[in-house]
Amino acid sequence: MKVVIIGGVAGGATAAARLRRLDETAEIVILERTGYVSYANCGLPYYVGGVIRAQDALTLQTPESFRARFNIDVRVGHQALAIHQESHTITVLDLASGTQYVEGYDKLILSPGARAVKPDLPGVDDCRVFTLRTVEDTLRIRSYIESHRPRSAVVVGGGFIGLEGAENLLHAGVATTLLQRSGQVLPPLDWDMAQEVHSYLRGQGLDLRLNAGVQGFQEMDGQFYTLVKDSAPIPSDLVLLAIGVTPESDLAREAGLTLGAKGAIVVNEHMVTSDPDIYAVGDAVELTHFVSGSKALIALAGPANRQGRIAADHICGRESRYAGAQGSSIIKLFHMTAASTGLNEKAAQAAGIPYDKTVTYSASHATYYPGAENMTIKTLFDPSSGRVLGAQIVGFGGVDKRIDVLATAIRARMTAAELTELDLAYAPPYSSAKDPVNMAGYVIENLRNGAISQFHWSDVESIPKDGSVTLLDVRTPQEVAVQGLIRPDAVNIPVDELRDRMGELDPSKPVYVNCYSGLRSYLACRMLGQRGFQCSHLSGGWRFWSYVTTDRTHEAAPTHPCGAEIEE
Amino acid sequence: MKVVIIGGVAGGATAAARLRRLDETAEIVILERTGYVSYANCGLPYYVGGVIRAQDALTLQTPESFRARFNIDVRVGHQALAIHQESHTITVLDLASGTQYVEGYDKLILSPGARAVKPDLPGVDDCRVFTLRTVEDTLRIRSYIESHRPRSAVVVGGGFIGLEGAENLLHAGVATTLLQRSGQVLPPLDWDMAQEVHSYLRGQGLDLRLNAGVQGFQEMDGQFYTLVKDSAPIPSDLVLLAIGVTPESDLAREAGLTLGAKGAIVVNEHMVTSDPDIYAVGDAVELTHFVSGSKALIALAGPANRQGRIAADHICGRESRYAGAQGSSIIKLFHMTAASTGLNEKAAQAAGIPYDKTVTYSASHATYYPGAENMTIKTLFDPSSGRVLGAQIVGFGGVDKRIDVLATAIRARMTAAELTELDLAYAPPYSSAKDPVNMAGYVIENLRNGAISQFHWSDVESIPKDGSVTLLDVRTPQEVAVQGLIRPDAVNIPVDELRDRMGELDPSKPVYVNCYSGLRSYLACRMLGQRGFQCSHLSGGWRFWSYVTTDRTHEAAPTHPCGAEIEE
Repeated sequence: MKVVIIGGVAGGATAAARLRRLDETAEIVILERTGYVSYANCGLPYYVGGVIRAQDALTLQTPESFRARFNIDVRVGHQALAIHQESHTITVLDLASGTQYVEGYDKLILSPGARAVKPDLPGVDDCRVFTLRTVEDTLRIRSYIESHRPRSAVVVGGGFIGLEGAENLLHAGVATTLLQRSGQVLPPLDWDMAQEVHSYLRGQGLDLRLNAGVQGFQEMDGQFYTLVKDSAPIPSDLVLLAIGVTPESDLAREAGLTLGAKGAIVVNEHMVTSDPDIYAVGDAVELTHFVSGSKALIALAGPANRQGRIAADHICGRESRYAGAQGSSIIKLFHMTAASTGLNEKAAQAAGIPYDKTVTYSASHATYYPGAENMTIKTLFDPSSGRVLGAQIVGFGGVDKRIDVLATAIRARMTAAELTELDLAYAPPYSSAKDPVNMAGYVIENLRNGAISQFHWSDVESIPKDGSVTLLDVRTPQEVAVQGLIRPDAVNIPVDELRDRMGELDPSKPVYVNCYSGLRSYLACRMLGQRGFQCSHLSGGWRFWSYVTTDRTHEAAPTHPCGAEIEE
Repeated sequence: MKVVIIGGVAGGATAAARLRRLDETAEIVILERTGYVSYANCGLPYYVGGVIRAQDALTLQTPESFRARFNIDVRVGHQALAIHQESHTITVLDLASGTQYVEGYDKLILSPGARAVKPDLPGVDDCRVFTLRTVEDTLRIRSYIESHRPRSAVVVGGGFIGLEGAENLLHAGVATTLLQRSGQVLPPLDWDMAQEVHSYLRGQGLDLRLNAGVQGFQEMDGQFYTLVKDSAPIPSDLVLLAIGVTPESDLAREAGLTLGAKGAIVVNEHMVTSDPDIYAVGDAVELTHFVSGSKALIALAGPANRQGRIAADHICGRESRYAGAQGSSIIKLFHMTAASTGLNEKAAQAAGIPYDKTVTYSASHATYYPGAENMTIKTLFDPSSGRVLGAQIVGFGGVDKRIDVLATAIRARMTAAELTELDLAYAPPYSSAKDPVNMAGYVIENLRNGAISQFHWSDVESIPKDGSVTLLDVRTPQEVAVQGLIRPDAVNIPVDELRDRMGELDPSKPVYVNCYSGLRSYLACRMLGQRGFQCSHLSGGWRFWSYVTTDRTHEAAPTHPCGAEIEE
């Protein structure tokens, strides 16, 4: 059996190694267009910033090491030009020599990846405009930084590559402006969850400009400028274009394979395309989302690796299946971590899936042990079953742990009630006796069984202002004096005085309660509800409302949140 | 309704707060024998060592704050002496005044906890012998350290409190010897997994003595000594006794409530004892183990808190149930983390549950990103279904995340195949595209579907030495030269040369393969198996074998494991 693999990174490299482990006698050829195989593509931004210093850290595997270990014929600098399905052959171009040749296959695996989108804008081909997708791209930027010592950069696009690129440029001492066309960075987050990220990034020295549409690039008076709609041109010594990726499916399209959304290659659960002898894996394929069941494009390394293994298994007669991706993703931004798994509100709405949500604010570990840091968790759930549909977390330490626990719970189709029962490992340096994930479960269960009602930051302005309702703030007067009320018509009664001062409230009026994070307002609602008040509390509290509703464009980030903040 | 709660920490305090949230009108009384309520008992060892410096960090709640927030009558320094079930009353002793009184109840919640075992040994009541269970114990030790400036300490017992106590004594500058009666510390770990912990602790300066039976304490010539069986007496300025805890169930016993294993209080899934008006929660109750279904004593804060909530729910007519604990636990030891969830080998054997196991060695995150640290993972699974039964992890960064992911997977009754499908959040600073949990699943699946056979460190000596089998080491000659072979009769052929040198092996002999961690030996077995060799590989590799079989009593810990170690 002869298997040819087009694309030798992530999915393609995994498929090759797995094939060899299953079949010592197969002939396996990898055709890789770039000069590198099985390189660490997720590490590339960190090489730009010098966080990763040794170039060979990114390219641990070489064609020679791959051949020695796996007896695989790795041809870097070889580009597949055309697939001939009837004859089971491929036309290949050897980029170094310029010669073409024909390679036969019994089974073909396409792992072409996705390419950086380069929009058709004036000046986009200037040598100071870079993209960041391959090792070559990375070396080019690093070399430019070392030779030209740029003092300023513009990054276009606030996805993973744009943000990691911006962090690394700042790390390398380059003043950086990030231009994002929409009103938020990090599409895996909902807009409200992105607000704390924006504030934090600005506090770290990033010149973040939202709703900034780039119109082109131009040299004027010896200075290179990025042209922005409704804004002054922005001078910089280099530009990193990171507005997204698109499936590299030209070869598949030309071969007549079935394509789906955004030109991605359609595959079945064994990663087989519309041609039974051609498989496709990685960023170029259309996936089924595990939670929504919708078709999705998910350009992440984890799914690519799993798919490569599954394609190899199926070629070797094993019955493994790809069960769908849930888009779990995470990014480090200086000391902050932002992560997501499953459905966010945008995705649930697009898929027509009913959901409700909570916003909780929890410490990474016991607050009496040094170093606790708070995190904001937004959890989406099915209102009828309580099944967890998705989660987003923004915080510092311990975010990665909680997103993976939630990703596992979502995979197991757990309900919020089951989150409360999770028996997680607790010691003061690691967690609290009630872990943040347990707490999210408790809050959802309280909502579902009627122990509490909630309202959201987006409801605050539409609550009647005609005196027909009561807005009640149960923080201390000291907190209110420093932080302010969510609306000037709110009254302040600290939760610890509420039992004695309940007579000050009109029991005929609905009460909307808030505190700092949502814990004291919950307690207050329990008190009020039992005395006959119609009552609801602000999910996420003053804190989340404040992040979402305050224009902090020109404000430094607030003090790093400390553990004591939530000892309500 | 009047509810009296005996014991105001963890389970008792949680029950009180939950009761109040559910019922504003209930009369709630907490009787707490010590002077403190709802204190951070898991933080006490860290106060001893000065990691936590402010005493009030441990005692955030006071009787006054509890009363203000929850309208609860908290009586510290009040000890329940007897329960009179017929009359629904308790005899209480006010320790300050010495007066007794009778308190009535409609529902009673017992949350008495467990007490430190103080064995009947000569000299055990000396004022230099301490236990560490209450705030008072903690203040006493801290005060002794500050006033007497001890230069040396003996800790008796290598469980959580003993180890955390020893770490904190060392942190406070006290030379510390830890005496452990059995051959390992940390009972949640199997003996083999504890060996790396022993080695590491010795490297951190702890004088760890295993199989050391303490026989008493004695002052001789002005110096205080701990007397050890078959060993010289050990001088020290203080002794911390931490040989374990026992359920504080005297009151329940005297009241005639049904007790189970080791005198723990028997409860149903609603935490109701044999008296329908008396509940019990926390360290004093007998639990059902979630995985084995066996009865178990699990003295941990997480279960205690959940049980307190469930008792309160049931008293208020809510149908919540306790679904059993799985013993998830974790400990920080200097920079090391050791953690466990579900069944270990000892527990599986005791419960008569069939299991198989794997030992894997994975990096905390992508090795090309700075700071990756390796961890050893032992995973137990059901050989027929593949269901994950338990996991133990010893390592540094990222151990807490993986134990919680595995705890969640065990809770969801996931199989190893489902571990491979977990869609966890990957970026280089946090994980690898195949997370260590995914990898454990892959290895188990390879075992279950016959892609690989394995042997264990404990099998090495019993493999025939008569020349009827081949021991094959596939590391590089350089590694073998430095590290040595697992047996002198092993032959060394590096994995990358194996295809060419297979002729050197006798195909009629079974082959036992090892490498450093188990990855290259797996590859070698795949090559050999396909050429007709009967082949198995050493789970955990030379590294695990070496930790378990080497007497490192007098050896400093090896260099902190670096990421590159497993780039095989």
